[in-house]
Amino acid sequence: MANLDDRTVRIREVGLRDGLQSIAQCMPTSAKLAWIDAEFAAGVREIEVCSFVPAKLMPQFSDAADVVRHALGIPGLTVAALVPNVRGAELALELGVPKLNYVISVSESHNRANVRRSREESLEGFRQVARLAAAAGAKAVGGMSTAFGCTIEGPIAQDEVLRMARGYLDAGAAELVLADTVGYAAPDAISRLVERVRAIAGDVPLALHLHDTRGLGLANVAAGLAAGVRDFDASLGGLGGCPHAPGASGNIVTEDAVFLLQAMGWHTAIDIPALLRVRDIVRDALPGVELLGAIAKAGLPIGHGAAPP
Amino acid sequence: MANLDDRTVRIREVGLRDGLQSIAQCMPTSAKLAWIDAEFAAGVREIEVCSFVPAKLMPQFSDAADVVRHALGIPGLTVAALVPNVRGAELALELGVPKLNYVISVSESHNRANVRRSREESLEGFRQVARLAAAAGAKAVGGMSTAFGCTIEGPIAQDEVLRMARGYLDAGAAELVLADTVGYAAPDAISRLVERVRAIAGDVPLALHLHDTRGLGLANVAAGLAAGVRDFDASLGGLGGCPHAPGASGNIVTEDAVFLLQAMGWHTAIDIPALLRVRDIVRDALPGVELLGAIAKAGLPIGHGAAPP
Repeated sequence: MANLDDRTVRIREVGLRDGLQSIAQCMPTSAKLAWIDAEFAAGVREIEVCSFVPAKLMPQFSDAADVVRHALGIPGLTVAALVPNVRGAELALELGVPKLNYVISVSESHNRANVRRSREESLEGFRQVARLAAAAGAKAVGGMSTAFGCTIEGPIAQDEVLRMARGYLDAGAAELVLADTVGYAAPDAISRLVERVRAIAGDVPLALHLHDTRGLGLANVAAGLAAGVRDFDASLGGLGGCPHAPGASGNIVTEDAVFLLQAMGWHTAIDIPALLRVRDIVRDALPGVELLGAIAKAGLPIGHGAAPP
Repeated sequence: MANLDDRTVRIREVGLRDGLQSIAQCMPTSAKLAWIDAEFAAGVREIEVCSFVPAKLMPQFSDAADVVRHALGIPGLTVAALVPNVRGAELALELGVPKLNYVISVSESHNRANVRRSREESLEGFRQVARLAAAAGAKAVGGMSTAFGCTIEGPIAQDEVLRMARGYLDAGAAELVLADTVGYAAPDAISRLVERVRAIAGDVPLALHLHDTRGLGLANVAAGLAAGVRDFDASLGGLGGCPHAPGASGNIVTEDAVFLLQAMGWHTAIDIPALLRVRDIVRDALPGVELLGAIAKAGLPIGHGAAPP
């Protein structure tokens, strides 16, 4: 992980993928493009813009190619896309996507329930994706979902995460992501697991994808920061919620995560008032979908961003 | 502060005071008594049961004497009450309340707006309260509200907090409380301020009273824990909200704070399912009042409380 004196943290927007995939209604393509533009203008420099899954499985992403083409036209934006398999990677690479996010559940049961493959079969898929990415000069990212716990198996042994991380690294992953998919992580577990994965990851960056299902999302961000993580996924308005717990929150809220970081003196280059205005685009395009967020409700504190007195 | 190898943390319920004082409707006395009984049964061992303010100012607490008498009849429960002035302290001590919570805003403007006195006048009031308490064998607690920021003055200089803490200590405070009354604290500010106050507080315990106005409440609890704090205020269902931001949250949610602590392996002796059932008492007694809480929505994770795999 990079120089720890550098106070820069990167927030990567995943609402267009992880948020939208949990919502039955399809967001119009024009709204997706406006969302990407506005969030880039607010300072966000990496967006996971879609998932390359078959449109018959997830019609939410049937416009993936159009969304990717638009996003790739924005200089300075890192465009990422979820690729569930080799076919998805081929589609993404044909369009020129520079960052392919791949996910395997550390929980064997969860992986089988999710993609009907064993973890080893999924890892073999990643090896092929990584080879295709390398040939195209793109990055293949190894995501580990349910890294802290799983709705089927409960808590997950950290040794299992380490084993998967090694598999990813051996296959040439350009980045690793620990995902607390269903809200099982607590700050001390974050610290311990990040430390162990970093110890084997060498120069390969380690990011956190945290959910706020049980209210610990931002506490876990703070723990990740303290452990040296500088890349965090988040979803505007916490979009997506938790499919397993109606009314409960899902991804950490981008606006609130940026607020936490800035309140602790970290640099994000993101303008929170501009980010809050992006909510209007999302709200208008998804009638009836609730957006979460403490800063949206309470506003920024007086003097936010100024040096402490 | 006590032995740091001890993994015990105390959560003190303040919903009956800080929660109810922010809600216009009056909770029936019978519901308050049921709340106290049920929360004690769930394992909570300290409850701030009322405020000794004139009933014409806050009719919510016109039954303070009845509530206190009931609570004092529960062996093993530490009964605390807010006393805004000498008259309140006299009333509380006559009833036998063993712990008198006094509050001054570190922000001069906030203190004047709140109680129409300067901080120095308020501190003089505390000196009298502390003398009365000492004579009665009770504890007088020095609370510092707006210790991290204020809706009038914005951020608050830590030197101002230190000055007030010294005033409290000189007056014989049995405990100090840093209160983030309007959600200005961030984890690093918690760490720094706790460290500085502890450095002058000697054996006098330091507690945190945190609000979740901007979503950082539990991250701030984790920071306080790491800095050695072992006593935290919280409000069942986050009762009370934030009077300055409609819809925004106020006190941290007792259930969620207990979950954070237990998920990190700290001992609270509190049973979360029993605590969740207390919400029904509060909800039934306060129609239309929204209760907050992530655990109430998402439930406990599988294997909560078991040793990690």
